[in-house]
Amino acid sequence: LAGFALHPQLEADTRLVGDLPLCRLLLMDDARFPWAILVPRRAGLFEVHHLPAAERSQLVAEAALVAQWLGGLPGITKINHGAIGNMVPQLHWHVVGRLAGDSAWPAPVWGSGPRVPLDDRQAALLLAGLRTLLEDARG
Amino acid sequence: LAGFALHPQLEADTRLVGDLPLCRLLLMDDARFPWAILVPRRAGLFEVHHLPAAERSQLVAEAALVAQWLGGLPGITKINHGAIGNMVPQLHWHVVGRLAGDSAWPAPVWGSGPRVPLDDRQAALLLAGLRTLLEDARG
Repeated sequence: LAGFALHPQLEADTRLVGDLPLCRLLLMDDARFPWAILVPRRAGLFEVHHLPAAERSQLVAEAALVAQWLGGLPGITKINHGAIGNMVPQLHWHVVGRLAGDSAWPAPVWGSGPRVPLDDRQAALLLAGLRTLLEDARG
Repeated sequence: LAGFALHPQLEADTRLVGDLPLCRLLLMDDARFPWAILVPRRAGLFEVHHLPAAERSQLVAEAALVAQWLGGLPGITKINHGAIGNMVPQLHWHVVGRLAGDSAWPAPVWGSGPRVPLDDRQAALLLAGLRTLLEDARG
């Protein structure tokens, strides 16, 4: 893991949840959608297909764990996944909980307008929930 | 695989490449971007995290195979992945080759305007290339 550092834009837009076995787990600081980001802790990694097979499987396993948790939040009926990276090249995987009628629905969240920062209570609730996944992943 | 049928919207928007071990591989009929779609041949499947772990790994392996091929096309410098499904609920995974200066850059391709159908020559070239992956995946 030598040399891994989070891209400054990801650091600016998110709150830190913690580390899963492969990925740093981040909460997007956006009250419009429950939105997590997974960043494999590998320096100089830009593309999913550059990961070795075992780590690709681990990445999707960690994304599925987060997706399942987001899918259990009240009202969430769809999970969106995306690894885009046109503006922030460091490989990062978005997992977003959606509901019909949210502010971007049915469009994707990317490019849907400026984020609305979470208030402290919302952030605490989401961070506490996501942190239970770190325990699950260890156990 | 009993009961699997491609969603009519996916059928309308794409050309059939063939079947990988898990997924039906489709070429988006859009000349603006080299754009493949993978659809796991499982009836009633909507979410990545509903796949058993082995099939999730297979899905990302097949996506990586397609991504690597798209990444080798002239000018392509970035691969975008997405599984959204807000409008077409059947689980389908987009793999899109991007280049700085394409008609949507740096925005995602989803919601970037109407598709521009491939001409027969473009389609034949992309289909032939993608079909080599079916052989590789068998071998």
